[in-house]
Amino acid sequence: MTPAHTQWPAPAAIGMSVEEVDTPALIVELDALEANLARMAAFARGRGLRLRTHAKMHKCTAMARKQVALGAVGVCCQKVSEAEVMVAGGVPDVLISNEVVGAPKLARVAALAREARIGVCVDDARAARDLSAAATRAGANVDVYVEIDVGARRCGVVPGEAALQLAREVASLPSLRLMGLQAYHGSAQHLRQPEERAAAIAEASRLAKLSKELILAAGLPCPVVTGAGSGTFELEGASGVYNELQPGSYAFMDADYGRNVTAAPFAHSLFILASVMSRAPGHAVLDVGLKTHSVDSGMPLVHADAAGRPLTGLEYRKASDEHGVVFAAGGTGLPTLGSKLRLIPGHIDPTVNLHDWLVGVRNGRVAELWPIDARGAMW
Amino acid sequence: MTPAHTQWPAPAAIGMSVEEVDTPALIVELDALEANLARMAAFARGRGLRLRTHAKMHKCTAMARKQVALGAVGVCCQKVSEAEVMVAGGVPDVLISNEVVGAPKLARVAALAREARIGVCVDDARAARDLSAAATRAGANVDVYVEIDVGARRCGVVPGEAALQLAREVASLPSLRLMGLQAYHGSAQHLRQPEERAAAIAEASRLAKLSKELILAAGLPCPVVTGAGSGTFELEGASGVYNELQPGSYAFMDADYGRNVTAAPFAHSLFILASVMSRAPGHAVLDVGLKTHSVDSGMPLVHADAAGRPLTGLEYRKASDEHGVVFAAGGTGLPTLGSKLRLIPGHIDPTVNLHDWLVGVRNGRVAELWPIDARGAMW
Repeated sequence: MTPAHTQWPAPAAIGMSVEEVDTPALIVELDALEANLARMAAFARGRGLRLRTHAKMHKCTAMARKQVALGAVGVCCQKVSEAEVMVAGGVPDVLISNEVVGAPKLARVAALAREARIGVCVDDARAARDLSAAATRAGANVDVYVEIDVGARRCGVVPGEAALQLAREVASLPSLRLMGLQAYHGSAQHLRQPEERAAAIAEASRLAKLSKELILAAGLPCPVVTGAGSGTFELEGASGVYNELQPGSYAFMDADYGRNVTAAPFAHSLFILASVMSRAPGHAVLDVGLKTHSVDSGMPLVHADAAGRPLTGLEYRKASDEHGVVFAAGGTGLPTLGSKLRLIPGHIDPTVNLHDWLVGVRNGRVAELWPIDARGAMW
Repeated sequence: MTPAHTQWPAPAAIGMSVEEVDTPALIVELDALEANLARMAAFARGRGLRLRTHAKMHKCTAMARKQVALGAVGVCCQKVSEAEVMVAGGVPDVLISNEVVGAPKLARVAALAREARIGVCVDDARAARDLSAAATRAGANVDVYVEIDVGARRCGVVPGEAALQLAREVASLPSLRLMGLQAYHGSAQHLRQPEERAAAIAEASRLAKLSKELILAAGLPCPVVTGAGSGTFELEGASGVYNELQPGSYAFMDADYGRNVTAAPFAHSLFILASVMSRAPGHAVLDVGLKTHSVDSGMPLVHADAAGRPLTGLEYRKASDEHGVVFAAGGTGLPTLGSKLRLIPGHIDPTVNLHDWLVGVRNGRVAELWPIDARGAMW
């Protein structure tokens, strides 16, 4: 299940100035992006850790190929259809860091595992047996990670004895390779204070270590403990337990990650380019809303003008389907009708998923156009 | 700017049972949809009002054609690219119920106005002059509606004298046809109590009437006063001022509209079909999240099983990018791993915009597959 191409023409052309890019658009400052990518790659390399960047954030094979070129072992995905796009786009090793249910999807996983190295998470013995049967039918081998719940209270078995039991089941099944543990703590990424994040990941590491030791003691393999995200990767990286990191958001960042108190922030590299489509004495209305950015983690921040010159005192307060209403509290003052602004999205992953193109810019000009080729991949 | 086709294959095939539809998917109960469409059409016909259904909600030309076949004069859109898709899909009369800024978009409006009847809203004299120039260059005529702010505090000029001034400007410009007033009160749709909605629309009607009378007294035309949505259309319809209605959500409904206290509710006809992808003793995890439904107006409601049998006591409490966590508070109890559920989305418009297909079902079987062909149309 791979899409033919993105649905819409790009909102920009190579060589255009940022001011000329049609709005709404997602623009990526390439210098900032490259610095973020290099920094994460250097961190993993310096610690001898495997880096498996998360493609659910960018849903873009051009981005994935850049990450692999910098040393990532491959990418994570959350959906089989994302993995299919990534493999078709040249990524040789994809971990679906999520559970997969239902015969049609399992058959697709098995078919894909004949083309590339594919991993899947399991948290249920019957699901593991179904996956094994599908892989055997396809003549494929699938990497399997037992997912343990290390604090996210979402998917995953209870760490410890239940993890061992499921690992035994996986190890006993044909066409599955027991690769280790998925131990991702999503909500820890967004704890604001460093000491809160440290406590959450200390506990996650303890639970992962306990589970890994039980599996090893039973004579089973557990070569990889994988997890971590952009808010906590330094903690998992220093844990001595995790040996693979799954960060995604660090490449672009967003307003929510920007609110974390952290010693080593990544730069915001992705912005929503918006136009002022209406002006009233007390507010400006932008041509972006709930269909161009997600507000689940709060409103976007008004960051700069189209050229990147900082704007101050402007507050995006109200989003409707196609409108964003901005007020001025001192500072730069309200922008004029027709002018363009750069916004930092509240939450990067569901925002990128609304768009078909990333417009890469350098020195104020469009330098790259990357299709978000797994946009909408939800199966 | 029209897309070649939707990006993804449909998650269903004609004749399949609902249980077999791949998830996530948007399923539409055709009997309920048709009843909703007929009811709104009958309301408008019975009052002698023009019905111009809002395509920003469904973004689907198959839906628009059904609405026109039932008597709608055409559709509204919020974006030029939506209007382009609607015209390409056979809709002969489209009102862009929104302001359009920037030379590239104005040129597209003008080009489109050579193919179909196209209307645009204006709330600024310079914008009106730019539109006139673009239309003249293209040899086209564009219908223009002066937008007045009747309480939404978003776009629109102040009703009264400012509306008259802008109407004079529009009437004086070549290639523009002054058609009347856009007087839409979006936030009134979601006031919970009938008396609150009545008060809001009484004031909106007063402001629209005042503006219309000034325009007529100046010897200018004002044949159409357009506005209204699914939460208030009966009020505008009875106002004696509005003669065109723009409802969209009534066709599908959503959880937010369902919370309105109203004597004449439409039926929920659209559901998100989701699978249980993980089970813990105290919760079930669904394969839907922020990339399959918007949470800006609250979480989805767990409504029924795949076949449509009602479920009770299940609460969707936590959405992350690709996961929805459901808890049981008595009632039916938690669903089993792999089972499928029907959810009612919190907010219909930004939810539909995340999907590429509507799967029409009747008597438990897939009967129609409609591409959401203006999905992602944001320019």
